[in-house]
Amino acid sequence: MGLIVQKFGGTSVADAARIHRAARKAIAAKERGNKVVVVVSAMGDTTDDLIDLAKQVCTVDGKEVVPPKREMDQLLVTGEQVTIALMAMAVCALGHPAVSFTGGQIGLLTDEAFSKARIKSIDEKRIHKELDAGTIVIVAGFQGVTPDGHFTTLGRGGSNATLVAVGAVLKADVCENYTDVDGIYTADPRLVPNARKIARISYDEMMELSGLGASVLQTRAVEFAKKYGVPLHVRNSQNDNEGTWIVSETQTMEHIVVSGAALKKDLTRVTIKNVPDRPGVAARIFHAIAAANIMVDDIIQNVMHDNTANISFTVEHGDLHDLRPVVEKLVTDLGAGTVAAFQGDLAKVSVVGVGMRTHTGVAERMFKALADAKVNIQNITTSEIKISCIIDREHGPAALRAVHDAFELGGPGGAAAKR
Amino acid sequence: MGLIVQKFGGTSVADAARIHRAARKAIAAKERGNKVVVVVSAMGDTTDDLIDLAKQVCTVDGKEVVPPKREMDQLLVTGEQVTIALMAMAVCALGHPAVSFTGGQIGLLTDEAFSKARIKSIDEKRIHKELDAGTIVIVAGFQGVTPDGHFTTLGRGGSNATLVAVGAVLKADVCENYTDVDGIYTADPRLVPNARKIARISYDEMMELSGLGASVLQTRAVEFAKKYGVPLHVRNSQNDNEGTWIVSETQTMEHIVVSGAALKKDLTRVTIKNVPDRPGVAARIFHAIAAANIMVDDIIQNVMHDNTANISFTVEHGDLHDLRPVVEKLVTDLGAGTVAAFQGDLAKVSVVGVGMRTHTGVAERMFKALADAKVNIQNITTSEIKISCIIDREHGPAALRAVHDAFELGGPGGAAAKR
Repeated sequence: MGLIVQKFGGTSVADAARIHRAARKAIAAKERGNKVVVVVSAMGDTTDDLIDLAKQVCTVDGKEVVPPKREMDQLLVTGEQVTIALMAMAVCALGHPAVSFTGGQIGLLTDEAFSKARIKSIDEKRIHKELDAGTIVIVAGFQGVTPDGHFTTLGRGGSNATLVAVGAVLKADVCENYTDVDGIYTADPRLVPNARKIARISYDEMMELSGLGASVLQTRAVEFAKKYGVPLHVRNSQNDNEGTWIVSETQTMEHIVVSGAALKKDLTRVTIKNVPDRPGVAARIFHAIAAANIMVDDIIQNVMHDNTANISFTVEHGDLHDLRPVVEKLVTDLGAGTVAAFQGDLAKVSVVGVGMRTHTGVAERMFKALADAKVNIQNITTSEIKISCIIDREHGPAALRAVHDAFELGGPGGAAAKR
Repeated sequence: MGLIVQKFGGTSVADAARIHRAARKAIAAKERGNKVVVVVSAMGDTTDDLIDLAKQVCTVDGKEVVPPKREMDQLLVTGEQVTIALMAMAVCALGHPAVSFTGGQIGLLTDEAFSKARIKSIDEKRIHKELDAGTIVIVAGFQGVTPDGHFTTLGRGGSNATLVAVGAVLKADVCENYTDVDGIYTADPRLVPNARKIARISYDEMMELSGLGASVLQTRAVEFAKKYGVPLHVRNSQNDNEGTWIVSETQTMEHIVVSGAALKKDLTRVTIKNVPDRPGVAARIFHAIAAANIMVDDIIQNVMHDNTANISFTVEHGDLHDLRPVVEKLVTDLGAGTVAAFQGDLAKVSVVGVGMRTHTGVAERMFKALADAKVNIQNITTSEIKISCIIDREHGPAALRAVHDAFELGGPGGAAAKR
């Protein structure tokens, strides 16, 4: 007798057979007495294929130009629209009433940051009306519309943002995130063979892990889920196993010092040197970068002897294209002597756990593990519940395995898995 | 210094190279000093591919069910949306500002007849604003939106309806319809090798030809063009040749008795027998059929001796699936003795010309040509400017060639071609 929002990612709706499997999961939830909303991504490689088409038409005389972002979003939102229509047809063909809605059709309003827009509001009335009539409602993930009617996309993992936003606005009992893995692992199993599935994890831990490279859920989806208290359940679309529950923190969670480790690959460090050491300069720099919608990872500032400072920060390598002109303009504006340097080939290894708040010696144990593995640490950043080290990208996987072992996350002793 | 609306059909935008070619035509028109709007269809086989996907998800345990029409339209409108985004990117990549709009984004409102909706209005302000700024505006053909925000498609040839509706609302100087042929021919060149391109043809003739199977332009697009006095120019997207102008009737057109011949294949005749011969019965029958959004071709009614009538009409074979339940319900409702019979395998050959109004002997010449070709005539229908004969489908191509020759439409003597 609840309200469930299910989300199926691209691989879970890659062909007609998988769409049917997803449709059956929705119908099964409905037949257990729930109201059911289904959020879907674009099928399989659709988004990549569309991007490839865009590249083709943007290549003139062998040179590729950057397409207008508004038109790129106009193009990409079609991917999810295809899936919602097919999913609604599949549910209907299997004997249950269903209706599909694009982001625009449920008034999912966003800002105008094309390619990485943020959700402002959803008009839930239309969804409730259909749910009250016993209809399974299919909603396009990853997309919205601006108040002026331009289509927008929500950036990487945007379908999860849709899942949680829809769950929050409908006050859902659970948001089920169906993927092609069994849940959240203590580390990426492709890199760490003895990684284990985590049974329960807190929103805060999940947010840290997401921000640190765990790709299943993006940080802001989890942040939103925490804000509205929506439980998330990450499950495998190919089976009926229990997955990983992402929920509010409980006391038992504190007994486990570290619940997971993560690796973020392909980072670039930008250093702006000889910045005048006056109040407001750092704010000015990061305001310009934020205005370009680029996420900054870690920030380090060193004050020099000559009343200037060096400001370093890391960004994902993929953002460099957008970032470079912003930094170059800053360097010009900040005046004489200021220069920028870019260093690629970096990675970040991290451990996360709410138990760190009450346990000591965690940092020491991590640094020793990296030292034993002969991995040089370039920078260290910490929060209440995580420790991160910037390292050379080539040492990434070995470093991840070393810290995973040091905190005994894998194998039969994996504590987080038993929560 | 005019306003041109260009439309590129599916084959003219089938790949990146063709999209570039179309984009260059738009830019060339812009550089000649015009404001330019471009209407595009879905790329190549996209619509068929989407229909195929729909069939796959609508097949359960080997049985195919009919998808909800609303979801089918939700699916199909993505085809044109992909093309508009790519076309806008291509124009931008070639150095001109461009913006794309879906039917919904220009407020192209339709009724709720999914799969064959009719345009009610277009909000031209948004288009004018972009044109005034020097932007080339790309509009999705074939699609609209209901006042409730459901996406609709405009039925076969719907992109031409969009072309003319946009042309009318913007008071365009010309609507250029780019296809993969050089213009309108005296008959289908695939069936009649000596068919010739027509230089100028009146709206009325074109409407008749379209209604009779000439596939380049649908009847209602031409009807709309006539109503708003928008000149249409049918051209080949692969060259710069003059095509066929479809314009208001001129006096010189009357000198040519027959300007074209057409063949409609795949007709089915429905006969409702023993219908009570009372006033209002025919109206009731055709009201029910119109309510199901099925176009009826020719109608024949014969009154019998026993105060009953037989009512026959032809429909396109493809409409039979939707028509059959309507007819069966009518037979039940009309009461005792009424039965329905369906005869497939029919075709219709026709000749069209405004000169018929002032010339005699046209029917005689047509019937003689068919008799000489040993084609049996099953029914005859006429209008002021056309004569049609229902024949067996297997005789269709031969009958078309016979009447085309009889009116000397082909070869060097082809009168209509010289207009």
